[in-house]
Amino acid sequence: MNTPLLGTSFIGRTRSSGTELFTHGIVPGAGTVLEPAYLSATPEEVARAMSLASSAFPAYSSLSGKTRAAFLRAIAAEIETVTDDIVERGELEAALSESRLRSETARTTGHFRMFADLIEDGSWVGARITRGQPDIRSMLCPLGPVAVFCASNFPVAYSVAGGDTASALAAGCPVIVIAHEAHPGVAEIAASAIIRAATMTGMPDGVFSLLYGGGPNVGKTVVEHPATRAVGFTGSRAGGTALMKIAAARPQPIPVFAEMSSVNPIVILPGALARGEETLARAFFESLTNGVGQFCTNPGLVFLPMETGERFLSELRSLIGSAPPGVMLHAGIHRAFLEATAAVANTPGVETFARAGTEPGPGEGAPAVFTVSITDFLAHPGLQKEMFGPATLIVRGTLTEIQDAIPTLEGQLTATLHATDRELLQHTALVSALRDRAGRLVFNGFPTGVRVCESTVHGGPFPATSDGRSTSVGTMAITRFCRPAAWQDCPQTALPPELRDANPLGIRRLE
Amino acid sequence: MNTPLLGTSFIGRTRSSGTELFTHGIVPGAGTVLEPAYLSATPEEVARAMSLASSAFPAYSSLSGKTRAAFLRAIAAEIETVTDDIVERGELEAALSESRLRSETARTTGHFRMFADLIEDGSWVGARITRGQPDIRSMLCPLGPVAVFCASNFPVAYSVAGGDTASALAAGCPVIVIAHEAHPGVAEIAASAIIRAATMTGMPDGVFSLLYGGGPNVGKTVVEHPATRAVGFTGSRAGGTALMKIAAARPQPIPVFAEMSSVNPIVILPGALARGEETLARAFFESLTNGVGQFCTNPGLVFLPMETGERFLSELRSLIGSAPPGVMLHAGIHRAFLEATAAVANTPGVETFARAGTEPGPGEGAPAVFTVSITDFLAHPGLQKEMFGPATLIVRGTLTEIQDAIPTLEGQLTATLHATDRELLQHTALVSALRDRAGRLVFNGFPTGVRVCESTVHGGPFPATSDGRSTSVGTMAITRFCRPAAWQDCPQTALPPELRDANPLGIRRLE
Repeated sequence: MNTPLLGTSFIGRTRSSGTELFTHGIVPGAGTVLEPAYLSATPEEVARAMSLASSAFPAYSSLSGKTRAAFLRAIAAEIETVTDDIVERGELEAALSESRLRSETARTTGHFRMFADLIEDGSWVGARITRGQPDIRSMLCPLGPVAVFCASNFPVAYSVAGGDTASALAAGCPVIVIAHEAHPGVAEIAASAIIRAATMTGMPDGVFSLLYGGGPNVGKTVVEHPATRAVGFTGSRAGGTALMKIAAARPQPIPVFAEMSSVNPIVILPGALARGEETLARAFFESLTNGVGQFCTNPGLVFLPMETGERFLSELRSLIGSAPPGVMLHAGIHRAFLEATAAVANTPGVETFARAGTEPGPGEGAPAVFTVSITDFLAHPGLQKEMFGPATLIVRGTLTEIQDAIPTLEGQLTATLHATDRELLQHTALVSALRDRAGRLVFNGFPTGVRVCESTVHGGPFPATSDGRSTSVGTMAITRFCRPAAWQDCPQTALPPELRDANPLGIRRLE
Repeated sequence: MNTPLLGTSFIGRTRSSGTELFTHGIVPGAGTVLEPAYLSATPEEVARAMSLASSAFPAYSSLSGKTRAAFLRAIAAEIETVTDDIVERGELEAALSESRLRSETARTTGHFRMFADLIEDGSWVGARITRGQPDIRSMLCPLGPVAVFCASNFPVAYSVAGGDTASALAAGCPVIVIAHEAHPGVAEIAASAIIRAATMTGMPDGVFSLLYGGGPNVGKTVVEHPATRAVGFTGSRAGGTALMKIAAARPQPIPVFAEMSSVNPIVILPGALARGEETLARAFFESLTNGVGQFCTNPGLVFLPMETGERFLSELRSLIGSAPPGVMLHAGIHRAFLEATAAVANTPGVETFARAGTEPGPGEGAPAVFTVSITDFLAHPGLQKEMFGPATLIVRGTLTEIQDAIPTLEGQLTATLHATDRELLQHTALVSALRDRAGRLVFNGFPTGVRVCESTVHGGPFPATSDGRSTSVGTMAITRFCRPAAWQDCPQTALPPELRDANPLGIRRLE
């Protein structure tokens, strides 16, 4: 391990002292307690981090896109230098494999470089110029300090140096990260890399802080702090809705972008089954069990028309039967998975259709498939609840019943349709009903695996996210932390370069 | 009057019966009660309007932009046919002049035609195409039924057929309008025109409803209804924040776009005074008193450096002294204006610097100018409260004190700076502090008068609006009622035309 682990917060560039124990990293399943102890930031330290972020904002937000891009590229490079540290600690704290941790780290550096490209180009601000009387010009401007909560299921790519941090820093907003108790060491390694990058590229102190102390304590203080202008969160529905309430109750309410829960319904039409039921079952099984099912896009709900898919089901049952249980990310997720699957199994009308043949060990989650009739499904809204793990519920009904059930579903990150081209044309109302319930509509594929690009939408109607008008992945994520501002009759010399007649940055504009 | 006034709601195309008295139109000042009586929609009628809107949504939202544009153009044309009715009734209900009512009506028809142009072109959906594995394409899609609350200060342009209605209908969202009690007759005339246009262009029943019954009763029911997906509101801070609370407390929270209150600070630098103090005073007076000051962009707060502007002040005092009081829009606004100006006048340190020489008659508001030192201003946060009428507060301090005070201001729709080009370059921190507090930054002009165009930002940080990341005026207002959705690996024939390879609509896309 090249990064020394001190167990303390980063108040801007300064390491906090702290006194009270927050947590230790713990090896999931084994329960081994890892050193060092992580100490909570004190209320004074939290206040100092906020005050630094607030003072850093005017300077940081007025840097050119190219200068901020250099900072983002330095973060990517510094994270690469500590990839081995992340792997070493991540294998312990999160029970993730080396290959998964390396690919997550690559995803993270990819995020930073993608946003660096975006802000170097500069067109993302959406500049608009309307000449005449009066002359009005507008573009997106950063909101101010952003509070970011680490996700427990992506200790690298959606945590300290995750997509929320990358998009907020790209927009010109200082970031205050609240560490997750499940992987404090990986958090410290990532934060060290960001702080080194900030120092090397001469960023104002306070552009980034990392606070230990947990959501209910430190996190609440940060969200309530008047300097905070927006919140990014990935996690449970309970956690996300609690933050929404805190933010809405502030004297000045602020937006919360919480990505919370989704069962990612899949509808399989007969024509898709006819293309090969076993192949479909194997691909579905892969999506369901990959990463012990701990993805927000895990397919937890399948609508399969009555009297179809016998071979799909028997292949799935055989795959599940021989699937090994896997150690889950942390004790909290493991407990929630056991509770959620037990609740589904005990709901009237639900049958446990397939279970892993091997008994799960400590901290392990075992794949499971449940079935239910559409009538019982609709009668028990609790069956729409995310199980978060390698378990799915297959709902059987007529095609008409399935189509009628779609509008009653909660908001989703994704909805998937397996169908032939001909079936798609026959069932346009079904396609449009699924589209209305989800942020991303997947055709003949599976929802796990999110491509990070300019057209990505990783969002969706509540409760998939707190604000379905946003995405937390892809370049559009930057707009969450901005608002449009207009300049009326502003002399050329006082305009930001993006809005000057000469267009010195050469950006795309509407004019 | 060509439009028969029945005094009942529009439940889609059907006129409600209603039984309970909601209100009568009342001539402000005179207090004359106008016929007919307006009856509240019953709970069953409200439920029926919601159910119609919900059923109309899939059909209406899947119409092409060109077809929806034809509906918007028909609305503009139908409103033009009843302009005389609007003038006749508006002069009575709102004490507005014929010229003001004609220009407001022209603004309204302008809104509808602007959005018709926008959706005919189609590029507004922001289509993005990322080819490869997987193929991801995204664009904006309408949210669903939108509840719109009428503004009391613009009975035509921000009410039944106002900007919220125009942008929501343009986006593909059915609209349920909740009428304001101050101008029920003008509301009925505008709604009749919209319903005629909907019928003529074959729109689904329920695409538009108008409900009488008031915000606290009918409005609350509509905002709480599960079919409602967003809210548009222009009015008081108390009304807007009440709606925000209701929307946030729903099982599925929805966005509220409330435009609430703003004092629109003006900072005058010495160089701008040197260009002509009297001219500046006359232009300021015009902006302050136009329309009896009843604009959300009225300049209610001026920062004037110590020991400057003597001639500006004396010219202003003389203009105010000879200014006639004017009848205000309705009794509620009048009462609030009297209370707010009395509260300012009675705040320690505040001097009443100028008052209209004529005693105001019943329902009239008289222009007034107050002065206060910056120390007393900062000591009494109540002085930041909007007076909503022809009154302003002039704050005196050093330039440094003024600059330091800006970040303590609440969020504003606009902020204005009077300065020479040279001063602007000397005071970049002041410019950026003002920009951070407002949606629109005005240079050497006045905030009243909002140009409606593609770059307009009529929004701003809370409490100017509930969500500073939006504008309620200009083409960008349409995005409030949309969210991005993505299609992954969708066959060409099942894609919306906006996202097909062939680009049949010929729109601008990011690809």
